[in-house]
This record gives sequence, structure tokens and C-alpha cells, in this order.
Amino acid sequence: MIIIWDLIVLTVGSEDTGKRPEESEAEMIVMMLPSDANPKGNVFGGVILKHVDLIAGLVAKRHSGRANVVTASIDRMVFLKPVFIGNALIISARITYVRRSSMEIEVNVEAEDLDDNSKVHAATAFVTMVAVDKYGKPTKVPHLITEDENDKKRYIEGELRMNSRLKDAGKA
Amino acid sequence: MIIIWDLIVLTVGSEDTGKRPEESEAEMIVMMLPSDANPKGNVFGGVILKHVDLIAGLVAKRHSGRANVVTASIDRMVFLKPVFIGNALIISARITYVRRSSMEIEVNVEAEDLDDNSKVHAATAFVTMVAVDKYGKPTKVPHLITEDENDKKRYIEGELRMNSRLKDAGKA
Amino acid sequence: MIIIWDLIVLTVGSEDTGKRPEESEAEMIVMMLPSDANPKGNVFGGVILKHVDLIAGLVAKRHSGRANVVTASIDRMVFLKPVFIGNALIISARITYVRRSSMEIEVNVEAEDLDDNSKVHAATAFVTMVAVDKYGKPTKVPHLITEDENDKKRYIEGELRMNSRLKDAGKA
Amino acid sequence: MIIIWDLIVLTVGSEDTGKRPEESEAEMIVMMLPSDANPKGNVFGGVILKHVDLIAGLVAKRHSGRANVVTASIDRMVFLKPVFIGNALIISARITYVRRSSMEIEVNVEAEDLDDNSKVHAATAFVTMVAVDKYGKPTKVPHLITEDENDKKRYIEGELRMNSRLKDAGKA
Amino acid sequence: MIIIWDLIVLTVGSEDTGKRPEESEAEMIVMMLPSDANPKGNVFGGVILKHVDLIAGLVAKRHSGRANVVTASIDRMVFLKPVFIGNALIISARITYVRRSSMEIEVNVEAEDLDDNSKVHAATAFVTMVAVDKYGKPTKVPHLITEDENDKKRYIEGELRMNSRLKDAGKA
Amino acid sequence: MIIIWDLIVLTVGSEDTGKRPEESEAEMIVMMLPSDANPKGNVFGGVILKHVDLIAGLVAKRHSGRANVVTASIDRMVFLKPVFIGNALIISARITYVRRSSMEIEVNVEAEDLDDNSKVHAATAFVTMVAVDKYGKPTKVPHLITEDENDKKRYIEGELRMNSRLKDAGKA
Repeated sequence: MIIIWDLIVLTVGSEDTGKRPEESEAEMIVMMLPSDANPKGNVFGGVILKHVDLIAGLVAKRHSGRANVVTASIDRMVFLKPVFIGNALIISARITYVRRSSMEIEVNVEAEDLDDNSKVHAATAFVTMVAVDKYGKPTKVPHLITEDENDKKRYIEGELRMNSRLKDAGKA
Repeated sequence: MIIIWDLIVLTVGSEDTGKRPEESEAEMIVMMLPSDANPKGNVFGGVILKHVDLIAGLVAKRHSGRANVVTASIDRMVFLKPVFIGNALIISARITYVRRSSMEIEVNVEAEDLDDNSKVHAATAFVTMVAVDKYGKPTKVPHLITEDENDKKRYIEGELRMNSRLKDAGKA
Repeated sequence: MIIIWDLIVLTVGSEDTGKRPEESEAEMIVMMLPSDANPKGNVFGGVILKHVDLIAGLVAKRHSGRANVVTASIDRMVFLKPVFIGNALIISARITYVRRSSMEIEVNVEAEDLDDNSKVHAATAFVTMVAVDKYGKPTKVPHLITEDENDKKRYIEGELRMNSRLKDAGKA
Repeated sequence: MIIIWDLIVLTVGSEDTGKRPEESEAEMIVMMLPSDANPKGNVFGGVILKHVDLIAGLVAKRHSGRANVVTASIDRMVFLKPVFIGNALIISARITYVRRSSMEIEVNVEAEDLDDNSKVHAATAFVTMVAVDKYGKPTKVPHLITEDENDKKRYIEGELRMNSRLKDAGKA
Repeated sequence: MIIIWDLIVLTVGSEDTGKRPEESEAEMIVMMLPSDANPKGNVFGGVILKHVDLIAGLVAKRHSGRANVVTASIDRMVFLKPVFIGNALIISARITYVRRSSMEIEVNVEAEDLDDNSKVHAATAFVTMVAVDKYGKPTKVPHLITEDENDKKRYIEGELRMNSRLKDAGKA
Repeated sequence: MIIIWDLIVLTVGSEDTGKRPEESEAEMIVMMLPSDANPKGNVFGGVILKHVDLIAGLVAKRHSGRANVVTASIDRMVFLKPVFIGNALIISARITYVRRSSMEIEVNVEAEDLDDNSKVHAATAFVTMVAVDKYGKPTKVPHLITEDENDKKRYIEGELRMNSRLKDAGKA
């Protein structure tokens, strides 16, 4: 009897099958056009932020499956290098940490000068997305399976950042 | 002696005339349309981030005068309440702190349900903008004249945040 | 006697609570980008018209509450000064007159040269919006409470313009 | 003497060759998408206004040749019928009157229900465009050659409207 | 006998009323703006492709009536002449061939230099659209009535192209 | 003599250094929003075509270096599966063949249902891009270095397609 019960628990466990970061990671490349920049040719930070949030949402949606995902927060993001009209933005995103219904996604932004293929690291962002059900209430997502050392390290760092975020929120 | 003093005053006057926060503050109201949201109706965080950066840039440009302004960083931003299609976003921005060529702008985002005029505080952001000359090098901007207690308090807090940002950047 | 009084109070209270212009007025500021202008750098009149209609609709929606609002007409609008890429458009809107389901909104457009903070009056528009129910039929909106002399004057002028519009429509 | 006369004729000829309305008239058809409408499905008047101005500018540019054209005014425009997402907007524009550097363009807007091909007349607009040189100063455009009775009638009506506009401007 | 014949006629009449190409043909004119081009000023082929598909879908929708239409294929399309910012794109589309639920639409693209009204033939496209019901299954559309010699010739050529497409699809 | 020969080799070397397909390949992922679809929820073929052309241009620009690239043609493209609002489009592009100034880029389009991570092959396209100098004249690009069997096979197939394109163009 108990064994069968365990089995059921296990079956329930199949609802909570974890996912690996590779299953949801994403990359996009976007050409920066005059409509993305101020009249001096500098791409708006906000244009980059918009793409960062979009790809983070996409990764979170992939990890979450049917649930709807919404942005909970974005950590401090520093724009290390200016981006110009005609550059290509290479944005890659990977899930680093999961806590029940919250997911942390690391987004890296490179700017490529298409004239000489040179790339610069433009920014890194940590976006927290939350999975919500159709009533807007947080809903559980698959846990994160971290297999290699890098992913394990990212996970621990992600957990520290999440704790720090929650501590800050408590203070606010 | 007096002549030299006058000269200095004149020089200071022409180079470093300060500006008050009221001279550059801005408010915008934007209706959230289907193109701003995911298919479930939730407005993307990235759409809000884009408007936050745009208005911060506008305030910084107003304070800086002829210089070009670029986004240097955005502090951690928490999305406190979901925003939906059909809501109006009320975004107000005010400069809080100035250090040579860097400006901190506080941006407040409210979401208004136009069916019953109820408003919620959706997010607060601190954006750092930098004034640059035509070669992209940081250039001095007018100092910030803080007259009432609130602006003085904001200024001190802004200075603390700027120090913290620089410390973090040094560590990175 | 008391019963009748109660009834009147109830009717007024539920159907016709008035609203003051301050409750719905709105301001927005929009940076003019290359996608808003012809290749010579002149912002299209149509871009300005689009924002004028959007903000008028927003003010009308705020005044109307749950009803849907649609544009009925826009009076002759003269573009007094050219607007250029890089300018900021400052658009402010205020309700001036209400007749059952129609609302007149006055929209003022200023163009700001962000290099020197100089502003010019670019245009004024009078937009008529109508509140409609879910079948598209006009539906009553709160009456307009005009308290100070300016609002009373605007109201009378708005009434004259509305009469003139209806007269023109009758002729057409 | 004859040589000089020829020269004058040539100069006039190159500066003031007239054009017929057919040479610049234009039609466009645009599908109305969710991004053109409020969440209830009603297309914004401002979206229609934007297209009206765009096509008027195009007709004026065709008539003017190399000059740059800017919108001077749009007469009162009444939205006769609501337009919905999924409708096609059929917008046709024709120049009706020319005075030195000003051109009046009549724009007709039809909305077509693509489910049953039924069309309604949604609006008519009279847009005044002005040709300007590279310094933004008004510059002469070809005169309008009106050959048939309809065009002659439109021309006279256009002249009356232009006089009325100038009279109103003088009063303002 | 006669009664049965009548019935057949009626059935055919109600299910299969044909339409002529003139009933669905469409033309649109679009000004090319900086947001449609790369930083060198060349309009993206993709922008032209987008408009080509949009107008083909519109013509197919007009021919199909209530059915939903989706793009099935676009034949090889050659960009014969470059298009630049400030040019007007004149796109005209006409249905050439119908097979049960498939429609072939010929789309012609001209680019007009608005400075001197000169036009070049920029591209021709053959787009195949399919009418689908609400479950996404192909659904019959009215047959094509070709009256003059040109339309008859187009129809035969369209049939040849459709056969070639189906043959290629079979091979793939 | 030898020195001169070396010089020539060097010159040729600097002009004609080949590039491998990996150096320019690109992937992008784009969420399909309501503004990308008709009111029934089907993403327009034209939206997909626009992204296909954009990424092909990006790959061609990466291969070409400083030259400007323009779209010369797109081969017949079949939309194998419908794409819906809320799907993610995964578009990957790789250069397959180079002839002096022409480049063939193969673009693959997958549509991912983000609810269950299932992907379908939506379309394949072969886009020909041409590198042009600042006067719009075709200019030589690096040759294509094909190292493994797959790339060699693609190259031969690309050459066949290019010959077929040129033959068709000759007939037209």
C-alpha cells in the first residue's frame, strides 16, 4: 500500500519534473535601426532593456510550460559601452536559478560592429520572472537541474542574489 | 582685484549656472495597447523600461542643454503591480543628483485603470544618465540647485546611491 | 415627500455625478524620432494628430468611466510652427464641455528644442469624443463641474463650438 | 529683343509649368490591425488622421516636385462611421486648389468590411500643405490645370475654403 | 428534368458564385521612411515583402468573403531596382488564378522618386493564398470569372505556375 | 622578382581572404505579438518574410565586412505550417554560396509553441544578397571556405540554384 502511495507521489512528481538550462536558453540578434536611437545615433538604453526583458520572458516561458510569466524585477544594469545605429545586438539568455514560482534569468548583451565583426560586451542583466496562473497568482514551475560545475556555481550565486532581493524588498 | 573677481564670477556663471529640478522634470501618460503586452494581456516589463529610459533621457537632456546624453545604468527595478492592456501608464521623472557629467533621475510609474480611475504604484526606477560631447567623452553639466528640504534630502540619498554604484563598479 | 427626495438624490447620485476638469486632464511628453519625420527632418503633421487624438481619448475615457469612447470629430487644426526630429512634443489636454454623451477636449501642443529648452506653441486642437456602450450606442457621461471663471468661460465657448459643429453637420 | 523675350518665356516655363490633378492623385489601402485600435476594437481616429496626413503629403510632394512639403492645417474632420480591427481603410487623395506655395488636398476615407465587401464613407478631410525650400521658407509650386467641370468646381470651392482659412487665421 | 436543372443552378449559384478580378484588386502607396531602411538608406527587401504579402492577403480576403486567408507561398521574387528612403512604393495586386481554396495573386511593385515623379519597376511577385475555415481547414472560394483576353491569358499562366508549384512540392 | 610576387600575393591576400560559414551565421528568436497577426490570430507571411530578409542581410553583411548589402532575390518560399500569436519564431541563417559579389543565404524558420516547447518547421528560404560599394555598384566579397562535407554539398547546390536563377533572369 505504502509503495503504491509512494508511486502516486512519484507520479505527482512527474508534474514537477525538472528542466535543464539548455532546454530554455535563447539567443537573438537584432539590427539597430534609426528608430532605435536618438538623433545623435546612440541607441537608447530603453531599446536594449526592452529586448532584454523580452528574451528573459521567453526563456522563463519555455521553462514554465503552460503558465503565463510576468517580469518581477530587473537588477541594476550597467551600460558598459555605447551601442550605435547599424550595430547588431547579440542577446543571449539562460536561466540560472529557480525558487518555486520565481526564475532568475541571466541576459548578456553584446554589440557587434558589422563593418569589422568586432564585438563588445555592452551589458549583463539579471531578470526575475514569475510564473502566474490565469488568476494572476504565482504558480509552481519545474525545478532547475544543474549538471555541470558552471551551472551549479550560477545556481548558488543566483540564490544569493534572490535572497538579497527579498531582503531589500523586506526593507522597502 | 574686484575686476578679477568679477571675471571669475562671469566664468563660473557662463560655465556652471545651476538648474533646479523643476526646470527639467517631466510627466508622460501612455495608453497600453495590445502591441505592448503578451497574448494574456500583461504589459511587458520591457515596454515600461523603454518608457522609463526615454523620459529619464529627456529630463537629463533638458538639464544638460546642448550635450548629448546616454544611459549609464538603471538601478534594480521591482515591478510591484501588473499592468494590463487598456491601462494608462503615468510616468513622472525628476532629477535628484548631479556629479560633474552624471545625473541621477528618479522615475515613478503609476498604472491607472481607466474604467474607474484607480491608480496603483507600479514601479520606481533610478536611472543614471551621462552627458557626452560629440566625441562621446563625458562633459560637465550644470550643477543641481536644491532649494527645499525634499530636494536636499533626495540629493543626499542620490549621492549615497551614486557612491554605492561606483563602489559596485569598482568591485566588478 | 422624503421618499421623493430620496429618489431624486438616488437618481442624481447614480447616473449623473459630475466631474471637474482637473479629474481627467492629462499631459504627455514625447521625443520626436527619425521614424516620426520625413527625410528632411520635419515631423509629419499626422504624427502630431495621432498623439492629439490619443490624449483626447484618454481624457474622455477618464471623464466617462466604464464607457468606451470614440472620436467624433476634430476641429480645424493649424500647424503654427514646424516640429523637428529631436524636439520634444509637450501635449496637454483638458475637457472643456460636455453634452449628454459628447465631450469636447482642448489639446495644446508645444514643441521644445531640447538643446536650449525653448518652447514654441505648435498647435491647438478641439476634439469631440463620444461615449458609447457595448453596442456602440451613445451613452450618458457625468456632467462637467466648472468652478472657476476660466472653466466657466471655456464651457460657454465649448457650447458655442458644439452648436456650430451641429449646425455644420445639419447643412452637410 | 526677341532673344530676351524667349529667355523670359523659358524661365517662366521652367518655373511655372502647371500640373493636372491626375498627375499627383493617390490611393492607398491599409488593413486595420489590433495595434491601430483600443482594446474594444475601435480604430483610433488618430490612426486615420495619420494616414490622411501621409497621403496628403505624398500628393503635395508629387505636385511640388523637388520642394519639401509640410502640413499647414487640416480642416474640421468628422468621423462619420466607426472603423474596426480587420476593416480595410481605403484612402484616396486629390489636389483641389493651389495658391503660390499652398496646396489644398481633398482626402476621402472609406472603411471596407472585408467579410462582405461592404464599404462605408468614414470621413472626408481637406488638408493644406505648403512647399518649403531648404531654409524652411515657402516656395512656389506649379499651378493647377483644371480641365473638366468637376475639377473647375472643386478649384472654386477650394479657393473659398482657403479664403475662409486665411480670414479665420487673421482673426485668431 | 427542368426542375432538377434549376436546382443545380441554384446550388451552384449559392455556393459558387464567381467573382471578377476587378472586384478584389487593390493598390496602395507607401512612403519609405528611415525605419524602413538600413543606415545607408537602402530600403530592406523585407519591408517590401511585408507589404506585398499584406496586399495579397487583402485581395484574397476580398475574393474569399467571410473565410480567413493565410499565405501558402511566394514565388521567386527578384528585386530589380534599389528603393531608397523618401521614395514612394506603389504596390498593386490582382487575382490571376483560383483553384478550389487556393488563389494566386500577382503583385507589382513600383518605386517612385518623389522629387521628379519618375517611376521604376522594382519587383513582381506571385503570392499563393489559401482560404481556411475557423478550424484552419482549406475552404472553397468563389471561382474566378475572366472576361477579357488579358485575364484569360493570366489565368492560363497562373494555372501553369500552380501546377509547377504542386509538382515542386511533390518532389520536396 | 620574388619580392614583387610576394607583394602581389599579399595584395590578393588582403582583398580576398576567405571566410567560413560559421563566421557569419546567425540565429534569432522573436515572439509573435498581436501586431504581427491578422484578427484571427494567424501571423502574416509578410512578418516572417521581413525577419527572413533582415537576418539574411545581417549574415551577408557579416561576410562582406565594410560593404553595404542589398537583397537581390528570394527564391520560392512555402509556408509549411501556420504560425500563431504567442508562438516564438526561431530563425537561423547560414551562408551557402558566394559568387564574386553575390551571396546565397539559407534561412530556416521554426515556430515554437511556448506552452509545450513543441517546434514545427515553418519554412525554408534562399535569399540572394549583393554587396555594393557607396555608389551602389556590386563589389567583391571574401570567398567562402567550405571545410566539411555538409558545407561542400551546400555550396554545390547553391551554385546550381544560382545558375538556375541567372538562367531564369536571362529568359525574363
